Amino acid sequence: MPHRVVVIGSGFGGLFATKELKKADVEVTMISKTSHHLFQPLLYQVATGILSPGEIAPVTREILAKQKNARVLLGLVEDIDTEAREVVWRYHNRTERTPYDSLIIAAGANQSYFGNDQFAQFAPGLKSIDDALELRARILNAFELAEIESDPEKRAKILTFVVIGAGPTGVEVAGQIRELASKTLRHDFRNFDPAAARVVLVDGAAHPLPPFGESLGKRTQRDLEKLGVEVLMSQMVVGMSDSTVTLRDRDGNEQVIESICKVWSAGVAGNPLGKKLAERTGVELDRAGRVRVNEDLTIPGHPEIFVVGDMMSLDGVPGVAQGAIQPGRFAARAIKDRLAGREPAAKFEYKDKGSMATIAKSKAVVKIGKLEMGGFFAWLAWCGLHLFALTGFKSRLSTLMRWSMSYLSRHRSARAVTNQQLVGRLALEALGERASGHLLVDDVDVHPIAKRN
Amino acid sequence: MPHRVVVIGSGFGGLFATKELKKADVEVTMISKTSHHLFQPLLYQVATGILSPGEIAPVTREILAKQKNARVLLGLVEDIDTEAREVVWRYHNRTERTPYDSLIIAAGANQSYFGNDQFAQFAPGLKSIDDALELRARILNAFELAEIESDPEKRAKILTFVVIGAGPTGVEVAGQIRELASKTLRHDFRNFDPAAARVVLVDGAAHPLPPFGESLGKRTQRDLEKLGVEVLMSQMVVGMSDSTVTLRDRDGNEQVIESICKVWSAGVAGNPLGKKLAERTGVELDRAGRVRVNEDLTIPGHPEIFVVGDMMSLDGVPGVAQGAIQPGRFAARAIKDRLAGREPAAKFEYKDKGSMATIAKSKAVVKIGKLEMGGFFAWLAWCGLHLFALTGFKSRLSTLMRWSMSYLSRHRSARAVTNQQLVGRLALEALGERASGHLLVDDVDVHPIAKRN
Repeated sequence: MPHRVVVIGSGFGGLFATKELKKADVEVTMISKTSHHLFQPLLYQVATGILSPGEIAPVTREILAKQKNARVLLGLVEDIDTEAREVVWRYHNRTERTPYDSLIIAAGANQSYFGNDQFAQFAPGLKSIDDALELRARILNAFELAEIESDPEKRAKILTFVVIGAGPTGVEVAGQIRELASKTLRHDFRNFDPAAARVVLVDGAAHPLPPFGESLGKRTQRDLEKLGVEVLMSQMVVGMSDSTVTLRDRDGNEQVIESICKVWSAGVAGNPLGKKLAERTGVELDRAGRVRVNEDLTIPGHPEIFVVGDMMSLDGVPGVAQGAIQPGRFAARAIKDRLAGREPAAKFEYKDKGSMATIAKSKAVVKIGKLEMGGFFAWLAWCGLHLFALTGFKSRLSTLMRWSMSYLSRHRSARAVTNQQLVGRLALEALGERASGHLLVDDVDVHPIAKRN
Repeated sequence: MPHRVVVIGSGFGGLFATKELKKADVEVTMISKTSHHLFQPLLYQVATGILSPGEIAPVTREILAKQKNARVLLGLVEDIDTEAREVVWRYHNRTERTPYDSLIIAAGANQSYFGNDQFAQFAPGLKSIDDALELRARILNAFELAEIESDPEKRAKILTFVVIGAGPTGVEVAGQIRELASKTLRHDFRNFDPAAARVVLVDGAAHPLPPFGESLGKRTQRDLEKLGVEVLMSQMVVGMSDSTVTLRDRDGNEQVIESICKVWSAGVAGNPLGKKLAERTGVELDRAGRVRVNEDLTIPGHPEIFVVGDMMSLDGVPGVAQGAIQPGRFAARAIKDRLAGREPAAKFEYKDKGSMATIAKSKAVVKIGKLEMGGFFAWLAWCGLHLFALTGFKSRLSTLMRWSMSYLSRHRSARAVTNQQLVGRLALEALGERASGHLLVDDVDVHPIAKRN
């Protein structure tokens, strides 16, 4: 029987680990709670109506269709029985156990609200296709509401968008909402000027994009301000309600911003699976709840278990795509080395391929080692790299076409809003126990949608 | 003050009526419960993963952005105060009244279950983007379920799809599910052969596509059968449950098909607004609940009120796009004629531009007057006409690209399934009163998503 590798998660870490095992004499089982791989760096473009979900979320089993040693199972991993070496997972109300010889855990991270979990209901994060579609509905619906609102004070509140967290996602979302308001929607309303929409970007740091350094950070701030984004730095969010955000600066002064549509892109919290693993194996978690791995990405006492990507805590590895791709491949290579009787590399070393963020049309910042670049050429580099990195020729072609369209005109073609998007997580909550993650708690032999209580 | 025209609905009837009024000295207010226009003839392609919602559902206010005499309001029309000449509509918990001088009602139709409304929960229809996305989730999820199901009997039940109603939509959905199973998904699964999926098309008529006549109908049946669709004609659906459909033939013999994923595309029921209108004005409704209009598409005693499209009952006008576009334009022209002091045409006459339906890749049937055509050239004609009829250059280009892709390869690029799609109407139901149509029952000054109970 070939060596059995189980990979948990279909994100960058899980997918690249699986692909690295393509020619190995192993049997790979990927278990994931979504049927798609998600190209998270472009999620904000789904949220702001440029791209459709299909373009950044190709179906994982299609990507792996030709890899005969890999199978994909849709399921939510609930536990890892490290004694029996079995992954415990669920699909609807059916629980399965899948045995492994080697295990690569790449289950990703959740949004962190730094202890203020009550903020989550007012300012959802942007981690999944569902999040993006819901945010799209919330943004576009705010303009619809504004069109029928005659009270100017209420309208101002509806048209104030607050983005919390000035990392790449926060910067990109803030810039895109401004472009949407001032360009895309320019001719669409009769009772108000969409360009009047206020977009506020808030962060506790001194400038946007802290990892890019002060020079690019300040440049980003100037570019955002030129676009009309209000950039409020060195501000902590200390309170939130349906229609307000309360900020406190370093001197303790507070201000309240009236805003209904708020987005959270500030922090990363470990996956609940990390906690399970800690209970089972005694592995340490860092403050954010991520798993502290050995230098070779395994966990103490379990050379057969690798943790990679956003779930892993390792100094010097940033929470970007490369921070999951490189560890995923490293873990897969270690498994291949062991099977071949070779000594695997003792230490994972992260190769910094640079960081990039777009601010708006024709504006981006790029940092590769000591090279820092901003403006149009940085933006071109950003476009090229992201196109190149998208999985699949079709997605690339289709994305290139949409980008060209929205660059040459002011249009965004993915502005459709459905009932499901509108009710979003509110509906999932109302379903309660019947909807858990991607997986309805329901009889497996009855179709989830057909089954009613 | 210019003449005020209110148009209810953003479908073919409402949109073409509004566009016809572009240069008239009127003030048009379109009130619609969706923010998009829907190109319904291609809805089945969204359901089966070929197109994305944006491609067939452009935002109405974008289509009308340059038409300065038109404004668009997102709202659910609840009543028409024919005395005061005001449309009563709601957005969230806010009720508005919009006065009109002329009114064009084009609010569309609902699915009819011919008195068996309990079937709706087991076999949803295909009328909206929400329906299509939910159906996509149900179809693709059935294959996911089959991959982890080891009991061959249960798996067969999961992989049996029953389509009820052999009109164009039913024929197209049945054909597409077979193509999806036998071509697109061919290499994607490890534990079963997706081509084993059983697709059953059921109708009470003697052959598919009754309005196309016996010759094309029989040809369609043969083509479907060659694809592997089981075509069960002269069968009535007399019972349904989570996992079964009961059929009865003309001799009273019953058979039970075990199937979880069922689709209903059999009948059209009038819009509830028709009933309101009947209560207010005494206008007659036909058996399906559609409004019986005068020959000039107005209703008795109310020359200022036109009813067009699927909501109207008029002999010889089929329930296709042209059956709404032509009446919509006719009503708009009548309004312009009156304003110019000209006598409007006394009688609407439907110009039959032909009917078309696709069966599968390279196969379609076309009937234009006495011309009947099937096969590859009919399919080419179908493609050309539908591309031409799509609203907007971008949608056309983008759709053409996706069709070429899925024709040349076996791929479908819009296979992403979200949590929201999966829980679909189950979630909307759980929300109950808080979700009504597109419109959450909620404070208008609080964002629907942020507001919780």
